[in-house]
Amino acid sequence: MDMLEKTGSQSSPALLREPVTDEGHGLVELIGARLPEVAAGAADNDRDARFPVDVFTSFGKDGVLGATVPKELGGLGVDRLHDVALGLLNLAKVDASTALALHVQFSRGLTLTYEWRYGTPQAQALAERLLRGMATGDRLVCGAVKDHPSTVTTLTPDGHGDWVLSGRKTLVSMAPVATDFFVYAQWRAEDGPIQLAAPVVSREAPGLDVLDNWDGLGMRASGTLDVVFRDCPVAAGDVLVRGPLDAADDAALAGQTVSSITMLGIYAGIAEAARDIAVRSAGKRAAGASAGVRTLVAEIDARLFALRATAGTALGEADLLSTVLFGDLAERGRRMMRAFQYAKLTVNELGLKIVNDCLTVVGGSSYVNAHPLSRLYRDIRAGWFMQPYTYPDGVDFLSAQALGITQHNDYMKTRAAQAPAPR
Amino acid sequence: MDMLEKTGSQSSPALLREPVTDEGHGLVELIGARLPEVAAGAADNDRDARFPVDVFTSFGKDGVLGATVPKELGGLGVDRLHDVALGLLNLAKVDASTALALHVQFSRGLTLTYEWRYGTPQAQALAERLLRGMATGDRLVCGAVKDHPSTVTTLTPDGHGDWVLSGRKTLVSMAPVATDFFVYAQWRAEDGPIQLAAPVVSREAPGLDVLDNWDGLGMRASGTLDVVFRDCPVAAGDVLVRGPLDAADDAALAGQTVSSITMLGIYAGIAEAARDIAVRSAGKRAAGASAGVRTLVAEIDARLFALRATAGTALGEADLLSTVLFGDLAERGRRMMRAFQYAKLTVNELGLKIVNDCLTVVGGSSYVNAHPLSRLYRDIRAGWFMQPYTYPDGVDFLSAQALGITQHNDYMKTRAAQAPAPR
Amino acid sequence: MDMLEKTGSQSSPALLREPVTDEGHGLVELIGARLPEVAAGAADNDRDARFPVDVFTSFGKDGVLGATVPKELGGLGVDRLHDVALGLLNLAKVDASTALALHVQFSRGLTLTYEWRYGTPQAQALAERLLRGMATGDRLVCGAVKDHPSTVTTLTPDGHGDWVLSGRKTLVSMAPVATDFFVYAQWRAEDGPIQLAAPVVSREAPGLDVLDNWDGLGMRASGTLDVVFRDCPVAAGDVLVRGPLDAADDAALAGQTVSSITMLGIYAGIAEAARDIAVRSAGKRAAGASAGVRTLVAEIDARLFALRATAGTALGEADLLSTVLFGDLAERGRRMMRAFQYAKLTVNELGLKIVNDCLTVVGGSSYVNAHPLSRLYRDIRAGWFMQPYTYPDGVDFLSAQALGITQHNDYMKTRAAQAPAPR
Amino acid sequence: MDMLEKTGSQSSPALLREPVTDEGHGLVELIGARLPEVAAGAADNDRDARFPVDVFTSFGKDGVLGATVPKELGGLGVDRLHDVALGLLNLAKVDASTALALHVQFSRGLTLTYEWRYGTPQAQALAERLLRGMATGDRLVCGAVKDHPSTVTTLTPDGHGDWVLSGRKTLVSMAPVATDFFVYAQWRAEDGPIQLAAPVVSREAPGLDVLDNWDGLGMRASGTLDVVFRDCPVAAGDVLVRGPLDAADDAALAGQTVSSITMLGIYAGIAEAARDIAVRSAGKRAAGASAGVRTLVAEIDARLFALRATAGTALGEADLLSTVLFGDLAERGRRMMRAFQYAKLTVNELGLKIVNDCLTVVGGSSYVNAHPLSRLYRDIRAGWFMQPYTYPDGVDFLSAQALGITQHNDYMKTRAAQAPAPR
Repeated sequence: MDMLEKTGSQSSPALLREPVTDEGHGLVELIGARLPEVAAGAADNDRDARFPVDVFTSFGKDGVLGATVPKELGGLGVDRLHDVALGLLNLAKVDASTALALHVQFSRGLTLTYEWRYGTPQAQALAERLLRGMATGDRLVCGAVKDHPSTVTTLTPDGHGDWVLSGRKTLVSMAPVATDFFVYAQWRAEDGPIQLAAPVVSREAPGLDVLDNWDGLGMRASGTLDVVFRDCPVAAGDVLVRGPLDAADDAALAGQTVSSITMLGIYAGIAEAARDIAVRSAGKRAAGASAGVRTLVAEIDARLFALRATAGTALGEADLLSTVLFGDLAERGRRMMRAFQYAKLTVNELGLKIVNDCLTVVGGSSYVNAHPLSRLYRDIRAGWFMQPYTYPDGVDFLSAQALGITQHNDYMKTRAAQAPAPR
Repeated sequence: MDMLEKTGSQSSPALLREPVTDEGHGLVELIGARLPEVAAGAADNDRDARFPVDVFTSFGKDGVLGATVPKELGGLGVDRLHDVALGLLNLAKVDASTALALHVQFSRGLTLTYEWRYGTPQAQALAERLLRGMATGDRLVCGAVKDHPSTVTTLTPDGHGDWVLSGRKTLVSMAPVATDFFVYAQWRAEDGPIQLAAPVVSREAPGLDVLDNWDGLGMRASGTLDVVFRDCPVAAGDVLVRGPLDAADDAALAGQTVSSITMLGIYAGIAEAARDIAVRSAGKRAAGASAGVRTLVAEIDARLFALRATAGTALGEADLLSTVLFGDLAERGRRMMRAFQYAKLTVNELGLKIVNDCLTVVGGSSYVNAHPLSRLYRDIRAGWFMQPYTYPDGVDFLSAQALGITQHNDYMKTRAAQAPAPR
Repeated sequence: MDMLEKTGSQSSPALLREPVTDEGHGLVELIGARLPEVAAGAADNDRDARFPVDVFTSFGKDGVLGATVPKELGGLGVDRLHDVALGLLNLAKVDASTALALHVQFSRGLTLTYEWRYGTPQAQALAERLLRGMATGDRLVCGAVKDHPSTVTTLTPDGHGDWVLSGRKTLVSMAPVATDFFVYAQWRAEDGPIQLAAPVVSREAPGLDVLDNWDGLGMRASGTLDVVFRDCPVAAGDVLVRGPLDAADDAALAGQTVSSITMLGIYAGIAEAARDIAVRSAGKRAAGASAGVRTLVAEIDARLFALRATAGTALGEADLLSTVLFGDLAERGRRMMRAFQYAKLTVNELGLKIVNDCLTVVGGSSYVNAHPLSRLYRDIRAGWFMQPYTYPDGVDFLSAQALGITQHNDYMKTRAAQAPAPR
Repeated sequence: MDMLEKTGSQSSPALLREPVTDEGHGLVELIGARLPEVAAGAADNDRDARFPVDVFTSFGKDGVLGATVPKELGGLGVDRLHDVALGLLNLAKVDASTALALHVQFSRGLTLTYEWRYGTPQAQALAERLLRGMATGDRLVCGAVKDHPSTVTTLTPDGHGDWVLSGRKTLVSMAPVATDFFVYAQWRAEDGPIQLAAPVVSREAPGLDVLDNWDGLGMRASGTLDVVFRDCPVAAGDVLVRGPLDAADDAALAGQTVSSITMLGIYAGIAEAARDIAVRSAGKRAAGASAGVRTLVAEIDARLFALRATAGTALGEADLLSTVLFGDLAERGRRMMRAFQYAKLTVNELGLKIVNDCLTVVGGSSYVNAHPLSRLYRDIRAGWFMQPYTYPDGVDFLSAQALGITQHNDYMKTRAAQAPAPR
């Protein structure tokens, strides 16, 4: 065997080309086997804003839905953010919407695993129940973070030791197949401060309604819906406590990084898919490739390398730090979040440039919805809106970090503390 | 009356704020009166890729469809590119698709007027007939330039002194309401070189078929369709000659500039519409506008000023030169095209940056198709594909001009001379 | 005569190619006649950071030093900002440092003319005296605005109705040949607020010392020195009052725009000089110009067009508004400043890109101080630091204007009100 | 010990923060100990374009000059490009010129080691002699690649089995202290093709003259001089053969990558030095840091992360592939060069943006030569001119790689094959 070829399969982890663990290899292979199925439906699902239910059924059978669940609980035990992001990257090259929805499940697996290992006994029990269900593909657990502008989602004691949940969440991806919702809600003990809590609610709960209202600019097959809660009962044991809104603890930034950083893989996948289409198109006219096209192609490839290297490096940093369990955990949280945010700003900027330049290379034939570049141009823009952080919040966080300005960095609490945002 | 206020209505023409002729004022007012009607349908038409037929009926009644027809022939006599662009700008702020379709009619009026004034007797007769119909709103004349990749549209003598047209054109805007098509086709006299000719074909011609196949990324209400010609008969008097494909005459660049430069107004309108939405959104949070938002807003406004000034200056140059009728007409053509292309590159780059930054300012709520910014993000991208020139051709033209490289600059002929482009 | 050629000399004013007044024509010709002399010394003066004293002697003889002085007072009477900027542009193409220094005199002429026409009787008398001297070339009047970080320049009553000035100013361009300094200083009446005043001090005043301390990154021949005042006596009639630091009146923005906006011409000249060098260099290799070079050349020319159009349009706006003498003068001031700042941001960004790309086109031979591009790379960067406004202040101003945030926009007062800035 | 702290010293290699080998650690420490000495002279050496001879004497004593010489030959045995680049990065933060000159020696050590291990017996002998001298600090070996535009450096047989060298090289860094020159020269056997060869010439050789002619825009203390050869005798054993100019072998790209890729560390160091100055300056005004400054600081830090990650990843790729010794060596060469060029384009673009934004953050006080940012603004621009490749050549290489276009990628041969370039 050619040593180069062998080495090729061991390229720098920062390039997000090969998994760094055996479990990651397993996940990449399982996803790889489903790519033709995903690809087959991608264009139609995009056109119709239809969620690929069958694909998720397949992922359930394959064990993919339990990829980030520990082996002890029946999952695949993929615990490196690098490998999770690589799986999502490969999937996103074929359909970014599907990757975004799958990311919801992966992310939940990672954060629930932390609860299972280090949480209170109650949290451990709840996490174990959910994780075991995710491993078998029986449970798909959405995060429901962002309040609909019309309301504040609120938890109220029911007078018998349990709770009642009311409100409305928006932008809940993977909702069409969700079995459970991990909801962020506010509550207030008498005379106490407003607190943040995370009730887990079954889709079957009375008063819960999943709307069918997604008509996104992009990520149209991601099933990103609103969920309405009308006096839904929640058992005491199904609520995780997050503390007062004004209590800032930067240690929480670690979990928020873990929860979201693997999305960088999705945008790397979109950019690479666009690049491949553009290079294939330009290659057909290779001999006569014009000056403008050759310059664009060189820039596209250089930016894609930089995008991958930056995303891969941030994932590597996060993996390294996520194994640190004692010491200055606030600084650990900030350091993970800094690396994530540096990479997020870079991936957003380079990703859009790459996709845009690819349209220029391909020309007018890409300006119809049936052309895959059209979808990528719409999908890539989603990255800028993902939390944490939006661009303005990212500027605030990173400049505060550099300049030594103290601020409250937990976006879930600061958002909750704000009045509903104007539309 | 406050002198500043008065002066305000006389700002620098380069800023594209006020018409420079009375006829232009008339056009701007007529369009202005229809903006509520246009606005009312814009979102639905975008969603459904539906052409606003009623709006064009109204434009016909108003005389807007004859805006660029000389007064002697019953039109409004708007002959300054600046004023045409300004009318399109105002319209595009409300619906860019409608502006793009209307541009087709305006552009035809301008170029036919040139044929009417300076063409051969045959061309003058044909032009007069079309222009008189455009003035009353009875004729809507599409340009059909780009061949469908599957074919070369060809004109053949019918043996009796007339012609037969066969082929297929794509990306024909305003087609749903077109009464006539101004088609570019190739033909070859026995043993002669391949020639380019422009037959004018009635929609009623036997063998002509307008497909209903537009599902664009943006400009969805512009009715940008394919038109198929199956042995359509064309009378000898309805064909304008354009000469051999390999005969380059840069004088033709003047007409190509006149024909397309007013589209810059459309993209200025899109950018300004986006800016207004973003500033309104940020203004609601004014006191607390974050660092990132304030920086973006300042950059947006600076870029919009630069975009308008650059487009307006190029339009001014073209207006100035379009009145020049003798001298070095090849250099006149190149000079008009250079100004246009400088501005086109700038408008494309700045327009996209502005719209993209506006999405960032507004945030995730703009990432749904019902939000107007979503439409603007899709619409703005069309400008990069418009001829003359695409980005690669623009790089070739401008660098050749700067470096003294001789090349064939007539994109209609060079495109025609190429094999069908790979998809 | 060829009509195109004739029209060529009447290109759009926004392009800053031809003067718009006869007086402007005169100025452009006078400067043009001296360009060989200026060019001859530019490289050596740059190397040695030496001020071109002889050139200014020539300018004095020619009447150039009185270009912006009204004809009634013996000057050339150039009163359009457009024409002043065009003269500076032509000069800057040969030596930006000389243009920057000459701008100081031009700027003073413009603002003193305003005092002469509309000021108090005392201000009129002072202005007339200075302007008459400027017209003959006997007076060269520097602005001394920025305090040295070590001090606050202060005016104190001398107890006999006159004043004493102490402090130190920095970045005073044209200082080597200055005969008078127009100084910004603070003073405080008993129990009153801190006020800003502008004493005019002769170079011969006791206690005044011009340091020879300029070693700039660029603009090395501009004579940008520190001036120290040690208890300099100033006659009561030589002081103009500017009011309390905390009294904001946006009407003052008009004068600040007039005073500085013509500098845009200097940076346009630098960019164009760089472009000409790069295109000449690339032209020698024309046939084989590589893809990267052709793309860069096209981008350079497009950006230069945009830069000129944006600067020219802002100058046109300022010229238009500077003739408005009643109405909402605060809004007039803001409107002039907005146009200026939009253009300044654009000129800075595009100018640097152009010069940088020109170095890339020319290659490594430009990376030595003897190469003219090296000087342009250093000179172009000065624009970013010029008031009004620096980039951060420009962001604050423009975003406040867009978002309806009220703030104090007079940078001379707000800077004065701050503690000395950290280095 | 705090586990975070410990982990902190093990951050992702791609970030170029910690050495990956013990030998690398040793080098970093030796360089670190000399940083105060280097820093002390940096400003003056920049001003006077003076080479820091004493620093290189110190480096010789320390063993630093033999860092990349194998231990078997007395060197430090640093063989990872990552660690070499890290050493240069740390040095460049204090003085980029010194790092650039030291890079010359490091680079020579790496490529001679390859000759010593895998070359012909003659090459091995020559390499060993040089390497042993480098290890003790007695030999400093410059590369002399670029012909002065006035000449082609040529090797001619002397008729007795040895050679005579004539010509002139330019841009030879570290020349003031060089003991030997590794020269690229052309020769032609009778009737044969033009060949490239690399004679090694002692500074003491008769006819060799080192000019003192460096007045660079930046990198002023790097001793980047011209070297003139007038019939210098060269022994047969001191010439390495490189083959015919028209014989392309992409395997050679590996050596060219190794030889130059560590320079990425220098530009990372410049960017980081600028960032530290800007953040320190802005930090002093932290509470009131304006919107523009906060946005710039966030962007600076994000770009610096991306720059480091991209450079570090390319270095990691090169290290991985440089250990591959059989297989498709042409593809190995291309792959190494691709990674290098992707990173080089990115580092150049981001580095300049970072430094430029840092000047904006600090403001006008940075626009004097005595301010360290002024030096960084001039130094950073050198990276764009370094081979392989210049920007145009990089565009050609990368686009050819993507589009499957075959071309001659060995810049040393293609440059040699060209006529002297126009200035």
